[in-house]
Amino acid sequence: MPLTRQNRAADALRPITITPDFLPRADGSALICCGHTRVLCTATLDENVPAWLRGTGRGWLTAEYGMLPASTQTRMRREAAAGKQSGRTQEIQRLIGRSLRAALDLGKLGERQILIDCDVLEADGGTRTAAITGAYVALAISLSRCLKSGKISANPLIGSVAAVSVGMVGGTARLDLDYPEDSGCDSDINLVMLNAEKIIEIQGTAEGAAFGTDELQQLIALAYKGIAQLAQLQQQAIEKAAS
Amino acid sequence: MPLTRQNRAADALRPITITPDFLPRADGSALICCGHTRVLCTATLDENVPAWLRGTGRGWLTAEYGMLPASTQTRMRREAAAGKQSGRTQEIQRLIGRSLRAALDLGKLGERQILIDCDVLEADGGTRTAAITGAYVALAISLSRCLKSGKISANPLIGSVAAVSVGMVGGTARLDLDYPEDSGCDSDINLVMLNAEKIIEIQGTAEGAAFGTDELQQLIALAYKGIAQLAQLQQQAIEKAAS
Amino acid sequence: MPLTRQNRAADALRPITITPDFLPRADGSALICCGHTRVLCTATLDENVPAWLRGTGRGWLTAEYGMLPASTQTRMRREAAAGKQSGRTQEIQRLIGRSLRAALDLGKLGERQILIDCDVLEADGGTRTAAITGAYVALAISLSRCLKSGKISANPLIGSVAAVSVGMVGGTARLDLDYPEDSGCDSDINLVMLNAEKIIEIQGTAEGAAFGTDELQQLIALAYKGIAQLAQLQQQAIEKAAS
Amino acid sequence: MPLTRQNRAADALRPITITPDFLPRADGSALICCGHTRVLCTATLDENVPAWLRGTGRGWLTAEYGMLPASTQTRMRREAAAGKQSGRTQEIQRLIGRSLRAALDLGKLGERQILIDCDVLEADGGTRTAAITGAYVALAISLSRCLKSGKISANPLIGSVAAVSVGMVGGTARLDLDYPEDSGCDSDINLVMLNAEKIIEIQGTAEGAAFGTDELQQLIALAYKGIAQLAQLQQQAIEKAAS
Amino acid sequence: MPLTRQNRAADALRPITITPDFLPRADGSALICCGHTRVLCTATLDENVPAWLRGTGRGWLTAEYGMLPASTQTRMRREAAAGKQSGRTQEIQRLIGRSLRAALDLGKLGERQILIDCDVLEADGGTRTAAITGAYVALAISLSRCLKSGKISANPLIGSVAAVSVGMVGGTARLDLDYPEDSGCDSDINLVMLNAEKIIEIQGTAEGAAFGTDELQQLIALAYKGIAQLAQLQQQAIEKAAS
Amino acid sequence: MPLTRQNRAADALRPITITPDFLPRADGSALICCGHTRVLCTATLDENVPAWLRGTGRGWLTAEYGMLPASTQTRMRREAAAGKQSGRTQEIQRLIGRSLRAALDLGKLGERQILIDCDVLEADGGTRTAAITGAYVALAISLSRCLKSGKISANPLIGSVAAVSVGMVGGTARLDLDYPEDSGCDSDINLVMLNAEKIIEIQGTAEGAAFGTDELQQLIALAYKGIAQLAQLQQQAIEKAAS
Repeated sequence: MPLTRQNRAADALRPITITPDFLPRADGSALICCGHTRVLCTATLDENVPAWLRGTGRGWLTAEYGMLPASTQTRMRREAAAGKQSGRTQEIQRLIGRSLRAALDLGKLGERQILIDCDVLEADGGTRTAAITGAYVALAISLSRCLKSGKISANPLIGSVAAVSVGMVGGTARLDLDYPEDSGCDSDINLVMLNAEKIIEIQGTAEGAAFGTDELQQLIALAYKGIAQLAQLQQQAIEKAAS
Repeated sequence: MPLTRQNRAADALRPITITPDFLPRADGSALICCGHTRVLCTATLDENVPAWLRGTGRGWLTAEYGMLPASTQTRMRREAAAGKQSGRTQEIQRLIGRSLRAALDLGKLGERQILIDCDVLEADGGTRTAAITGAYVALAISLSRCLKSGKISANPLIGSVAAVSVGMVGGTARLDLDYPEDSGCDSDINLVMLNAEKIIEIQGTAEGAAFGTDELQQLIALAYKGIAQLAQLQQQAIEKAAS
Repeated sequence: MPLTRQNRAADALRPITITPDFLPRADGSALICCGHTRVLCTATLDENVPAWLRGTGRGWLTAEYGMLPASTQTRMRREAAAGKQSGRTQEIQRLIGRSLRAALDLGKLGERQILIDCDVLEADGGTRTAAITGAYVALAISLSRCLKSGKISANPLIGSVAAVSVGMVGGTARLDLDYPEDSGCDSDINLVMLNAEKIIEIQGTAEGAAFGTDELQQLIALAYKGIAQLAQLQQQAIEKAAS
Repeated sequence: MPLTRQNRAADALRPITITPDFLPRADGSALICCGHTRVLCTATLDENVPAWLRGTGRGWLTAEYGMLPASTQTRMRREAAAGKQSGRTQEIQRLIGRSLRAALDLGKLGERQILIDCDVLEADGGTRTAAITGAYVALAISLSRCLKSGKISANPLIGSVAAVSVGMVGGTARLDLDYPEDSGCDSDINLVMLNAEKIIEIQGTAEGAAFGTDELQQLIALAYKGIAQLAQLQQQAIEKAAS
Repeated sequence: MPLTRQNRAADALRPITITPDFLPRADGSALICCGHTRVLCTATLDENVPAWLRGTGRGWLTAEYGMLPASTQTRMRREAAAGKQSGRTQEIQRLIGRSLRAALDLGKLGERQILIDCDVLEADGGTRTAAITGAYVALAISLSRCLKSGKISANPLIGSVAAVSVGMVGGTARLDLDYPEDSGCDSDINLVMLNAEKIIEIQGTAEGAAFGTDELQQLIALAYKGIAQLAQLQQQAIEKAAS
Repeated sequence: MPLTRQNRAADALRPITITPDFLPRADGSALICCGHTRVLCTATLDENVPAWLRGTGRGWLTAEYGMLPASTQTRMRREAAAGKQSGRTQEIQRLIGRSLRAALDLGKLGERQILIDCDVLEADGGTRTAAITGAYVALAISLSRCLKSGKISANPLIGSVAAVSVGMVGGTARLDLDYPEDSGCDSDINLVMLNAEKIIEIQGTAEGAAFGTDELQQLIALAYKGIAQLAQLQQQAIEKAAS
């Protein structure tokens, strides 16, 4: 059981803070910190929809994800300079988008689009799950503002969304992997849940050793525990923004 | 329970055929047909490795995936003409690569790279799982040829890999979804297994309704059943190529 | 006279087969095999026209061409991954488009566009001429279906189109060059003809030795002979699809 | 004199804070806030140099600049998604690079490259001058760390660099324009200075009204005043990082 | 004072010629030669405006700049082949556009766009200032033709625009730097002026040594002198085209 | 027989001038004017060869082609701004390269590369044939200079290359089509010849009406006539540069 965790228990989250309204002029925003991982999430309401939705009366939510070049230990190449987003970036932004759409009644949104931006200021593992968890807060803030201002008349939110990673590290199930754990684990699962109850997305990869259904059960149970705590922190941040 | 399945049982695969050596001059190749879905898979041994592996004595496997523009009911835009691969394409080729690397001892491969190409000739759902299942056959054929020809001295294969999709459609668990089922399902899971026993990758999405752990269990059990049959068909195709 | 041809006569085509409706759900499709060269051709009717034709009452035909990475002896780089189509690819798809437009009365087509896709599954020389010959079959099938279904009211086809390559190899004129002949020839001409009678396109290159008008005459005569046979095979395939 | 400035004097800077080591694991970093404008600046030492410097014994400094999509009042398109950096972005990163190179003895740096990243978290005018001012702090911190750790043996810094904007707004010369002033001004000059004494770069544009040499004099004098204050704040931040 | 200038005085322009109507079929064109530097400038009137101007009744002017690959001593890479314009190119074309827009009343232009093209046939320093000076001639010619032909009813030109470079070379202020001077100078300023009187753009860079306000004054005075001469040559060329 | 030709005979070239050394500092250059068509051609000797030729002792020649945006009656989009070269551009530069390589003994060139640039200043039909004809002059000049300077020791030129277009316009065979003829012709053939004797390239397209072998003969005979005159003009230009 070598990799960093210091005096954190195997079933403990890293210290989490969610700062709502980090960008006060955005429709909705939140800075989420999970240990050293810091992600700035914003939600922007856009009165246009993609062409294929015009005339349907339905809306959409789409997400973009990026890492600042210096967010990682070894500086990454800037994707804007490289001229394209990596496969990993596209995979993550598709995941964020699908996850948050599962919390929305897109018919109630009307012909509008919500643009989610998740930008990683500092990365130490779990950036995609932090992004989803933080983006939900930004989304909820922006929707509640739009309700107040009369921009929308009914709240399209049908539940809350949070995400966490779990993994087998040296034979032990651990919650909320940091970067050294993530790179050295046997297997790694990202779980996204609705209302801290039901699964929206499960993405598991055996990076070191294929796993059986027993281990899968054990990891999912651990994830439920973490998600319940995250959901509380989300709720507090949303209430703080409303006050 | 409306969507197409005609007289196929909920736990039955579509008719599957795997034609080894579809491209006789390739290092290894297979055409896999799962109902209307047809994917041409090839494996090419390349004596170069990516820069970051030079001098390590270890090899690599990477995969590319594409769909012919006319493979889908409504013609898709050609990615080469569009000038970039979609996020979906990149996500799938990353999945194929990770899945097959799990079956290889990359140290035994030596400083070589295996390039997998999966090109969809016709698409009717399940192209990514068909691609993994077919690509394993192409990979195994190419490695066994390289062993025979003395190009490599030890077989780096440490297991077989097959993949299948399962999903809840109108409340029922179904094996091997075709396109209408896939677009209309509540939730959809792709499972990749090693030796038809352990999980390498699990990717589940609640497109219609979030799911609980019970449904997850049920779907995984169904996938095991399908994978066992696919593994047999893979074995037959590999043996046919060797004879 | 060294290069492969085995017991094929200098004025003989390679064994040719044209399988109509290879993709049964496409508007029109054909798989053409010329020896080892195999090209999958499809025709898709699109109710949109390019911007510069809107309001003119006239239609258009455009073509795209691609090679599967593993279609060649040495694997080619995938153009979608490279992010652009090579000059050769663009040259070929422009040739296919021009050739087939010569067989159409674009006014009769109405404000519609036909998209031709030619994808090379296996390459052994002559892929561009095989693509034209096969694409004509896909085009004719799709138009006759559209007539039947009432989508169009008059057939815009004004003739048949077929293509073949001829070349001087070691001083001898040869018909339908395969890859070793093509790479080693003195000069190489691709001829596209209308109704097996008149020339639509002639593209000749002296790769080894510049040629005079006598050799040009001789090669053109040989091409006429091949085209006549191809036109018959095209007709048979079109009739088979109609039956 | 309509545009926002509230109770700030025409010759006063906005409230400025510079937080050194905002990214503790970077070689050098600083978050600079000038009113609502917030820019995260980092410096990374890279042991490679561009090809054209290999073998010369000399180093280089290059800069990249980006804006988070939600940093502006109206969300901007993400450049990584657009697939290229705008002309404005390239112009700014060239300016940052030239400005900081003026503070370095590139021979003393040795065959190394310093990569500066300036990422705008929130934008309210003056992002390019804030980026230069903050990037100098990140640069100085990283170099002093490299000296301590023995990575370099002599400090290549030959002076300090700071930048500010000045402009004629409604006929009055103003220091440190915010976004409303910047968009509505007659003319706008960005000045970069070495040691708060001499000019490295001057970029002036008459957006509303061409200006004479008198106005130019007046604006430059105002800029000197602001630069002197910025230089002090930079020094304090650098000392804090060293303590 | 080593760098080339031969028997040209420090305050003398290179030999300048401006040939109007170099492309007789363009709306307006001029070939400007400043010593060895030769730039072909054209102005094209386009009845479309960018989307963000539609319905405003106002027009726009935009500029593009390019260098022929063989225009420089060492052949440059062709930007069309590289697939993108360099940062330098974009910076220059933004400068040309801003400079010429300062000479136009865009409301009088109506909803039209003027496209300026500046293509460098031969480069020996000062291509951007030559481009601005030549492009003004092309612009003035095209507008006066449009007035005559009735395409526009009022001349939107509100002044003339010319540009020149000045710099400190080995401690001396020099006018109109050629390439060897430009590469070896201490500091280099490009000045764009309206009616040879007021400044539209000033861009100064200390490439070798930072400069004080005294030197800046001295250089600006020198620039005024050169601009006055250029303005005369521009006027002659415009009159010649009109005759 | 409506289209422009005024009092030029059907078998007459347009007025042709070839100005050698238009860019005096290039290795070799020529400006060729064929009526209104003006193309600037340069040849640059590069001591590098493409990777696939390293170690072979053989050289290469490659060509690039571009049109200035304002060279055409209706301004074209700048390819550098569009981010890619059109299919037409790529087709033409491949043709220029192949044509000139046919005049070289690449073994004698040694491991060097010749870069040909053909940039169209004004376009009125026949730009690709003018480019080939002019580029040959630039090539011959550069090689003869390299021989003199001792850069190469044997002249790799094995013949001269010139090109012309011919076409059937309203039933008549015409030499050297201008733009109105080219757009309105029945068929159009570009011929490239070695030593005004043998064919290197023939590219014929039936844009209006398919053609028979008789017409082909007639057009080729006409082309021979034009090529003979062009070859003389090329020779004179080369001699002038040498004197």
